[in-house]
Amino acid sequence: MSKIKVAILGYGNLGRGVELAVSKSTDLELTSVFSRRDPKSVKTLGTPVYSADEIFDHKSKIDVLILCGGSKDDLPDQAPKMAEHFNIVDSFDTHAKILEYISTIDPHSTKGGKIALVSNGWDPGMFSINRLYAEALLSDGATYTFWGKGLSQGHSDAIRRVEGVKNGVQYTIPNEDAINLVRSGKRPELATKDKHKRECFVVLADGADQAKVSETIKTMPNYFADYETTVNFITDDELAKNHSKMPHGGFVIRSGSTSAENNQVIEYRLKLDSNPEFTATALVAFARAAYKMNQNGVVGAKTAFDVPPILLSPRKRDDLIRDLL
Amino acid sequence: MSKIKVAILGYGNLGRGVELAVSKSTDLELTSVFSRRDPKSVKTLGTPVYSADEIFDHKSKIDVLILCGGSKDDLPDQAPKMAEHFNIVDSFDTHAKILEYISTIDPHSTKGGKIALVSNGWDPGMFSINRLYAEALLSDGATYTFWGKGLSQGHSDAIRRVEGVKNGVQYTIPNEDAINLVRSGKRPELATKDKHKRECFVVLADGADQAKVSETIKTMPNYFADYETTVNFITDDELAKNHSKMPHGGFVIRSGSTSAENNQVIEYRLKLDSNPEFTATALVAFARAAYKMNQNGVVGAKTAFDVPPILLSPRKRDDLIRDLL
Repeated sequence: MSKIKVAILGYGNLGRGVELAVSKSTDLELTSVFSRRDPKSVKTLGTPVYSADEIFDHKSKIDVLILCGGSKDDLPDQAPKMAEHFNIVDSFDTHAKILEYISTIDPHSTKGGKIALVSNGWDPGMFSINRLYAEALLSDGATYTFWGKGLSQGHSDAIRRVEGVKNGVQYTIPNEDAINLVRSGKRPELATKDKHKRECFVVLADGADQAKVSETIKTMPNYFADYETTVNFITDDELAKNHSKMPHGGFVIRSGSTSAENNQVIEYRLKLDSNPEFTATALVAFARAAYKMNQNGVVGAKTAFDVPPILLSPRKRDDLIRDLL
Repeated sequence: MSKIKVAILGYGNLGRGVELAVSKSTDLELTSVFSRRDPKSVKTLGTPVYSADEIFDHKSKIDVLILCGGSKDDLPDQAPKMAEHFNIVDSFDTHAKILEYISTIDPHSTKGGKIALVSNGWDPGMFSINRLYAEALLSDGATYTFWGKGLSQGHSDAIRRVEGVKNGVQYTIPNEDAINLVRSGKRPELATKDKHKRECFVVLADGADQAKVSETIKTMPNYFADYETTVNFITDDELAKNHSKMPHGGFVIRSGSTSAENNQVIEYRLKLDSNPEFTATALVAFARAAYKMNQNGVVGAKTAFDVPPILLSPRKRDDLIRDLL
């Protein structure tokens, strides 16, 4: 059986994760990586690299194009341009703008007879799917999403902008007490700040005032002021040794009643050593599904909500029913 | 908008749960309950009861028929008979026979232009879906299913057959050490007996020998001998007060690697006060999806693997994307 031909546009942590994930699959092959950088400067794990300018010359070698750029600038620019020519899959993750993003892309995909399967990953993505299943089953209930323990890029950047900080990272930590309260079947009102704590690891610049840096971080509006925040000071070496990974994850918990006497709790949890590598595995599974859906005649902009789970697997229907159902 | 008309065949704990779940929905109405018992003897929460013999006279009032009988005798007899005439949904849960069950039903559904969405609930059902998603994302990994804490009907029956036992129940308890080992990212080899303990609550018959009863239970082949088993002796009153519910649930955990350095853990957990009421909420959500799929032209025997999650919800597409994606 011929393999599904996949290509990547944009090769950073996410693109590298997609390359790894495709290499572990039995039914996909990665034909090419496209980059806006000089192709010679892009070091993949073996996949040939081409200039993004040439991408339309490769149409015959691409069944699904996986967009691995960022949600702020790259995807809103690239997705509408690619959607007419390729089946595309991405991990657009600006939650508040997904509806608008879909309506921008949909006419292009439809015109080209292609599918655009957007916003895959874990949140949006697997967390979203689990919020939907849980709500559909327990109509009388409340859903809670907790993030972490995870490295937050935005908060780490905020720390590094503080005067006297040489380097640093921030972890979002879910509040265990809040999780246990939700698990107990109670339906508390919880703001984001009630559900999470923030833990910072900071390398001080030479001669900086530790107490002042700590205070500046803890009182920073929006980012830290509303949260229980811990600031730890460490050395360059400790930062490099213990804080160079990109872990993340979290919990989606729905607590609901099916009768006056009976409460039911559904919980979905991810514990990820590498946020981009996990997002990449989702992109690859949904790329497989996108190709099959398009082969079945589905066109236009779709999301993980539209995908029958069976299409995500490379395995045969009967085997899946026998082994997993 | 007109509601989706649902009917129930078989009114026990599961049928009652379906009646409760439909009453909490906004887009479904329960038109009728069919029973093989004398309809006058069946006490519903308000839904009219008819003899199962009359069911074909009600075809125009049934968009989806939910089969609420048992997997051993009822469903294998009823499903093939009903499948040509109704869209049907059931919770057939004899895992080893699902493929055969599907192949028996499929020609009837196809002939009638109907859909049969079989084996819904939590295992098979939500656990199966989560095994599939997790395996599709983390191709290099291992999946573990733990059951409990839950009341096991089969093991409770086994206890009650022991001489000297007046009454009793058995709970399957997942082994916390095994769960934590799996969560740690290791991929241990675990047999069912390594993953679970068994806890029994027994009311002794008058004059029975406590030590002998305990020994007989703990050494019972297949049921208890291989497991760490605890036997607690209680009174009739304690049994009635503390052990009359049907709790269940468990964990599906997949641990997998996306690269040499990074492990990822996906965990799905259910904590259910009432096993039948939760199974019923799944049946109702999948009944909604079955109706929509059949309206879209899908016929034949299908499973939860074939259902796009969005069809399970009564809410509008744009609202789901905005609120849950």
